[in-house]
Amino acid sequence: MPIPVVWSPETRRHEPMREVWVGVPTEGTELPERVDRILAATAGHERVEATAHDDEVLRRVHAPAFVDHLSTIHAAWMQGPYVELVGQDRVVPYVFPTPAMTQGMPPTRAAATHGRAGQFGYDTMTLVGAGTWEAARAAVDCALSAVDLVGAGAAAAYALCRPPGHHATRDGYGGSCYLNNAAVAAEALRDAGHATVAVVDLDAHHGNGTQAIFWERADVRYGSLHVDPGAGWFPHFFGHAHETGAGPGEGATRNLPLAEGAGDGPWLEAVRGLTAYAAGADALVVSLGVDAAAEDPESPLQVTADGYAAAGRLLGSLGLPAVVVQEGGYHLDTIGGLVAAYLDGHEQGRAG
Amino acid sequence: MPIPVVWSPETRRHEPMREVWVGVPTEGTELPERVDRILAATAGHERVEATAHDDEVLRRVHAPAFVDHLSTIHAAWMQGPYVELVGQDRVVPYVFPTPAMTQGMPPTRAAATHGRAGQFGYDTMTLVGAGTWEAARAAVDCALSAVDLVGAGAAAAYALCRPPGHHATRDGYGGSCYLNNAAVAAEALRDAGHATVAVVDLDAHHGNGTQAIFWERADVRYGSLHVDPGAGWFPHFFGHAHETGAGPGEGATRNLPLAEGAGDGPWLEAVRGLTAYAAGADALVVSLGVDAAAEDPESPLQVTADGYAAAGRLLGSLGLPAVVVQEGGYHLDTIGGLVAAYLDGHEQGRAG
Repeated sequence: MPIPVVWSPETRRHEPMREVWVGVPTEGTELPERVDRILAATAGHERVEATAHDDEVLRRVHAPAFVDHLSTIHAAWMQGPYVELVGQDRVVPYVFPTPAMTQGMPPTRAAATHGRAGQFGYDTMTLVGAGTWEAARAAVDCALSAVDLVGAGAAAAYALCRPPGHHATRDGYGGSCYLNNAAVAAEALRDAGHATVAVVDLDAHHGNGTQAIFWERADVRYGSLHVDPGAGWFPHFFGHAHETGAGPGEGATRNLPLAEGAGDGPWLEAVRGLTAYAAGADALVVSLGVDAAAEDPESPLQVTADGYAAAGRLLGSLGLPAVVVQEGGYHLDTIGGLVAAYLDGHEQGRAG
Repeated sequence: MPIPVVWSPETRRHEPMREVWVGVPTEGTELPERVDRILAATAGHERVEATAHDDEVLRRVHAPAFVDHLSTIHAAWMQGPYVELVGQDRVVPYVFPTPAMTQGMPPTRAAATHGRAGQFGYDTMTLVGAGTWEAARAAVDCALSAVDLVGAGAAAAYALCRPPGHHATRDGYGGSCYLNNAAVAAEALRDAGHATVAVVDLDAHHGNGTQAIFWERADVRYGSLHVDPGAGWFPHFFGHAHETGAGPGEGATRNLPLAEGAGDGPWLEAVRGLTAYAAGADALVVSLGVDAAAEDPESPLQVTADGYAAAGRLLGSLGLPAVVVQEGGYHLDTIGGLVAAYLDGHEQGRAG
């Protein structure tokens, strides 16, 4: 039986349309149409509209001050002079309290909206517009509704989350991510009684946000394969093999960086490694980015739809209750097929 | 005798021409022409061309890795794909390892030039172009040459530094500043045997960089008056009255934030406060920003040329060996006169 697809029409409301990269406004690739393409390709799956969930789990995964910021910053922005001064109707930070700026001095909360923006947003390419909060919050409802389905007996459920989430930390957003849907799913699976949860991140980029959220925890493992940040890829500062967690979480984080150009061979070898790593957990969250595909404009990996199907079979074979959460994937003509290939593979692996 | 003006033609070589503010490329105001306007208005002063100094003091004030970065980043940038991809020939960071991103995880040095840029640059409006390093380094030579003049017996010397420096921290640049000329001057005055040095910062913005560099030191005091960051002004996170230093430097930092719209009255009251604060030091560095002037596009303060002259008289009356270092001031038609007014006032105050 095909894995049910949980979605929300609200996730279309985030319309960044552009990203600011090295100071240049460029066309965005994380578009609302991604939702429709994935829905179309999964038409044979049961479709479940997400139901509203309260903020309880969300505010455990993310700092309440961060949730408050993200849910109000665009309205505050529109009260400011930014449209009038420079025509900017989306929130884009311009100054960032990095260690290079703060130097150990305790910073005070910025009074100006354009100052405060950089306290939570850590890059210039993750714009907050009119519907961003609503979409990001709806994506969290998709993840939580998928957890509900699994709690009600489904072997697996897929949450068509948009915007993606794995770069969102406890109190930071970036990398086109705002709220960490996968982390919320993992936390909710823990609440549902699964003693340990493994998050396996197949996105082409390292999920620094998810890693950060569970960095010091042993009950949620985080394993990721991704293009090597050491080769110059986002998130640049994280995703290296030497990052393995800290404190009680020491050893619970695993990173398998891949060379630029890596295709199905090395990619599936890494998926096998993460499958073994996830074995023994009580539940599984898959951060399903399909931007490792050859056609994708945002990564240099060369994975095929067959590769994604094989990854699904490997992770499905674990037989764990599983929530599959959409992350990246930006080539509109192929992302639907790639998601469907993974989901079919996962189902086969589980059944087989 | 008019205060000598130390300058370097190299300081014209920094041509940012634009700033990226809240994601929008805007026209820059920190223009090479500032040098010529100030030179023209101080034509009656002895003019001294800066001489080359080695990096010894510079690399005590700034981290060697930072100096290495700043001196090489533009060449590295031009080796990258940034011009080809998006037409960007200046270094502009896009991702920043803020605490919101790093969350206590130790970041690894970014491999990509566009990633590494955000490790040292803390905003998007401080662009590094072809001549930026040469100009910033020449500005440091101006400051050091001014210290030399004072060491050789001049009562005071003025360093026509451009780009400005007071937002540059030990290993960060931002706010149109790259190397901290005032901090280098203070350090060199210490080396010259002055047991304590007071840095008085008259720029319209708080000099977070200078504050950071001397935050834990008692031998260099930092006092600043500036438009209140709590009213929404750069550097947003710093410059509040409660910031007074730490460790051995506790109490050696003083901030006097002013309300938007403050004119000569409250501004000179604050200058009097800082004059009293600097009294008892063995040498004085004045961070002379003239952007507190009413005409200036970059601040809401309303100080007049008479106000700057009066400030000069107050600080000059201390009778301390003094190095006056140029910081901000962006209204081309008036900055020269404002600088001249300060310098004349300082000389009068000293003589009087």
